[in-house]
Amino acid sequence: MLKPVRASEKTIPREKWSKHFGKWFRNVLIEGKILDYRYPIKGCAVWLPYGFRIRENVFCVIRNQLDSTGHSEALFPLLIPEASLQKEAEHVEGFEAQVFWVTRGGQKQLKQHLALRPTSETIIGPMEHLWIRSYSDLPLKLYQIVTVFRFETKATRPILRMREFDFKEAHTAHATEEEAEVEVKEEIDNYKRIFDALGVAYCISRRPEWDKFAGAKYSTAFDMICPDGRTLQIGTVHHLGQHFSKAFDISYETKDGGREYVWQTCAGISGRGIASVLIMHGDDHGAILPPKIAPIQVIVIPIPYKGKADVVNKECSEVAEELRKKAFRVEVDLREGITPGSKYFDWELRGVPLRVEIGPRDIEKGEATVVRRDTLEKQTCKRNELAEFLTKIAERITEDMRQRAWQWTKQRIYSAEKLEEAKSLLEKHVGIVEVQVCDKTECERKLEEITNARVLGTPEDTEVKTSGKCIVCDEKAKSTVRTAIAY
Amino acid sequence: MLKPVRASEKTIPREKWSKHFGKWFRNVLIEGKILDYRYPIKGCAVWLPYGFRIRENVFCVIRNQLDSTGHSEALFPLLIPEASLQKEAEHVEGFEAQVFWVTRGGQKQLKQHLALRPTSETIIGPMEHLWIRSYSDLPLKLYQIVTVFRFETKATRPILRMREFDFKEAHTAHATEEEAEVEVKEEIDNYKRIFDALGVAYCISRRPEWDKFAGAKYSTAFDMICPDGRTLQIGTVHHLGQHFSKAFDISYETKDGGREYVWQTCAGISGRGIASVLIMHGDDHGAILPPKIAPIQVIVIPIPYKGKADVVNKECSEVAEELRKKAFRVEVDLREGITPGSKYFDWELRGVPLRVEIGPRDIEKGEATVVRRDTLEKQTCKRNELAEFLTKIAERITEDMRQRAWQWTKQRIYSAEKLEEAKSLLEKHVGIVEVQVCDKTECERKLEEITNARVLGTPEDTEVKTSGKCIVCDEKAKSTVRTAIAY
Repeated sequence: MLKPVRASEKTIPREKWSKHFGKWFRNVLIEGKILDYRYPIKGCAVWLPYGFRIRENVFCVIRNQLDSTGHSEALFPLLIPEASLQKEAEHVEGFEAQVFWVTRGGQKQLKQHLALRPTSETIIGPMEHLWIRSYSDLPLKLYQIVTVFRFETKATRPILRMREFDFKEAHTAHATEEEAEVEVKEEIDNYKRIFDALGVAYCISRRPEWDKFAGAKYSTAFDMICPDGRTLQIGTVHHLGQHFSKAFDISYETKDGGREYVWQTCAGISGRGIASVLIMHGDDHGAILPPKIAPIQVIVIPIPYKGKADVVNKECSEVAEELRKKAFRVEVDLREGITPGSKYFDWELRGVPLRVEIGPRDIEKGEATVVRRDTLEKQTCKRNELAEFLTKIAERITEDMRQRAWQWTKQRIYSAEKLEEAKSLLEKHVGIVEVQVCDKTECERKLEEITNARVLGTPEDTEVKTSGKCIVCDEKAKSTVRTAIAY
Repeated sequence: MLKPVRASEKTIPREKWSKHFGKWFRNVLIEGKILDYRYPIKGCAVWLPYGFRIRENVFCVIRNQLDSTGHSEALFPLLIPEASLQKEAEHVEGFEAQVFWVTRGGQKQLKQHLALRPTSETIIGPMEHLWIRSYSDLPLKLYQIVTVFRFETKATRPILRMREFDFKEAHTAHATEEEAEVEVKEEIDNYKRIFDALGVAYCISRRPEWDKFAGAKYSTAFDMICPDGRTLQIGTVHHLGQHFSKAFDISYETKDGGREYVWQTCAGISGRGIASVLIMHGDDHGAILPPKIAPIQVIVIPIPYKGKADVVNKECSEVAEELRKKAFRVEVDLREGITPGSKYFDWELRGVPLRVEIGPRDIEKGEATVVRRDTLEKQTCKRNELAEFLTKIAERITEDMRQRAWQWTKQRIYSAEKLEEAKSLLEKHVGIVEVQVCDKTECERKLEEITNARVLGTPEDTEVKTSGKCIVCDEKAKSTVRTAIAY
């Protein structure tokens, strides 16, 4: 049944995508009608209807995964009283430079200034103080999907570094440190499944001490490699220990009548979760969306021929309607005065995973032409088998996208034994470079300084044997760390 | 098949609901685990998981309706540059006392202060200025579901008057004044369908000139009557004319090559949309949720009997699983050490529309006992017909709830010919009182002053014959207006 006509996988051009990544990404956002960042405040942008639907579909993947592991969705306020934000010392130190402050209501100066949430630990703290009384209230596993605000002083970039961006944050409280530890593993597993569903390849690393979340015991992060070789942090999971539970007096009565502070974790995926899908799978034609999250899964395009436009348009509308009944998200492009080629161009840019072309000859033969967005491969199938055919191809696309992403990513993980080698690789923006280090923080800081890169931390996703010498001081190495030029 | 055992409709007690409405409502919110308003900032509250799901289901009703009339969902930023907020003179005057201002980022004073959106006309303005170029870009129909902020100086009340609350706002732009006028009618029709789907009864009135939305040509509002006889504004639709399009220079090239400012409308439903459902349908046992938006549609409760707990619990879990497969949202309450009566109490308070009770005798007989939350009527049905039975009862509940709401509301609309009569009715908090007035604004203002009530405006939902005299000045009446003690 499958008759490949054109283009094997290897011919997909990815030159612009990798060499001119920034420009490519901005083009996909604006021309793809995903995000308009011309709003008159730096770092704030408008999610256009098409982008909004991609975003909602990604949220749906996240919600399903968190719900399936017993998290409940709630919604906490945006505003934080200054006194709350300042309760946990490391936290306030980490965030104070980044907080937007509300100081006035109407004409009135507020006695207590109010912060716009940069993250929600200090919002949830006072409520958990009220809610958690006894061991039977634990574990408490909540999440929310909200907008957060950070007064970025670095150059903002659409989605990648915004001042206002969406945040899917999970917050959990547990009776013991071990249970919190287990939860951290569960959250990591959740994120794996979420990014797997999106076909996004990642590395998981435990961040170095100096780069952990402000107020955490330790932080684990998901990074992806971008087409320009820089890494992008796309998700984080933190063991909070008892830092916040002590600051907010969140304690419970234990089974034997004692009193104990709860142990907490938190985890978050920002708007970068959505960006990761666009970035990972793109090519020179634009975005490629996995069928699962594509707002339009199938675009039907009429190929009119000499006065047969009406017949072809009608057939296309009927095909669209049939597919809709079978639960596909379908649009038919009946725009007049635009060539089929221009239509291909538009929908390829916007990442629609499947294109159905129908012309007079297809109608005669009772066939339809199907084009995969990911490989641009063209196939024909029987008109009455179209829905089944598309379902199969959609599954194959999903699987192929994931495999290509992992293959591409794995080829960009290097290792280096000498500083010069590491530096030279990183200067070339090759991706991630793994090196061995001793246990002195100063060596890792020096490594960052010399290579102008960032230490992402120790691998959490693979067992690594460390048997060599510290790349900086030449003493016996104690661990392997990943380095990269990071966004 | 239907064997009513207990309680006809008229026996449902609604004493607490109507006489102690404020207390009843707070109790439903807190004890029903819907909303926790003990957050340390006045007018900000936490949507608890159960309340969050009610809220999402209400949003779903709204989204479906707006999508079906060609609106697209988008998402605009929260922050408004001071310069944008001040562009439309009436608008800034109406809102300036209510705006929260961000004046600081980190330690830095911001050169341009940023307002938290109280509504989004001035956020959308600069974008429509960029997007709308020609007549072919029109109409543009967008909506968003966001959190808005108003620095309320009046006493805040949970959901009814908050400083941070959700807002479902539609914004449209049209080529002509007439098209905007048609759109206003469509938005009113949308809101009718939304409140109909929620079973909420309403009056639609065109607000008096002095009470229209700041910057509008005119405003139409939906009001409901609360159990305490006060009215609650639950939705508004505004014809904006060209006020904002002139302020933001939103113009388009007409078909004949001219240039014209667009005509706009906007419409909004606040968190009160969710409150309206809780308030309209309640009784002394608590909330009653329409099946369509109930997070839990069916609660299954085991009636254990002497050592048969295991068998009964197992049967209940199986029933729940079967119903889940048929797309019901079901929970089974297996809590130990709590009597079935206490469980009834909890789930009635939380408004679960259907209860299934199963005891050893039901198992023997192959039956199940079904209790309607709205009438508390008890019925039995064959175990193997349970799903069909519940589907039927759910439909009947939905219809009965809507009918009762309308019946109850209609009984609370009075008319008065004399000022004393109107005043006396309004003092008794009877509901809405319709009176006739001349066309002098001063008479209507005087009416408000004397009765201590608010003029809701002229009826938009019924044809009213006005043939009497102005209730204030005794001159020939020109219109009928509704008055009420409003929230």
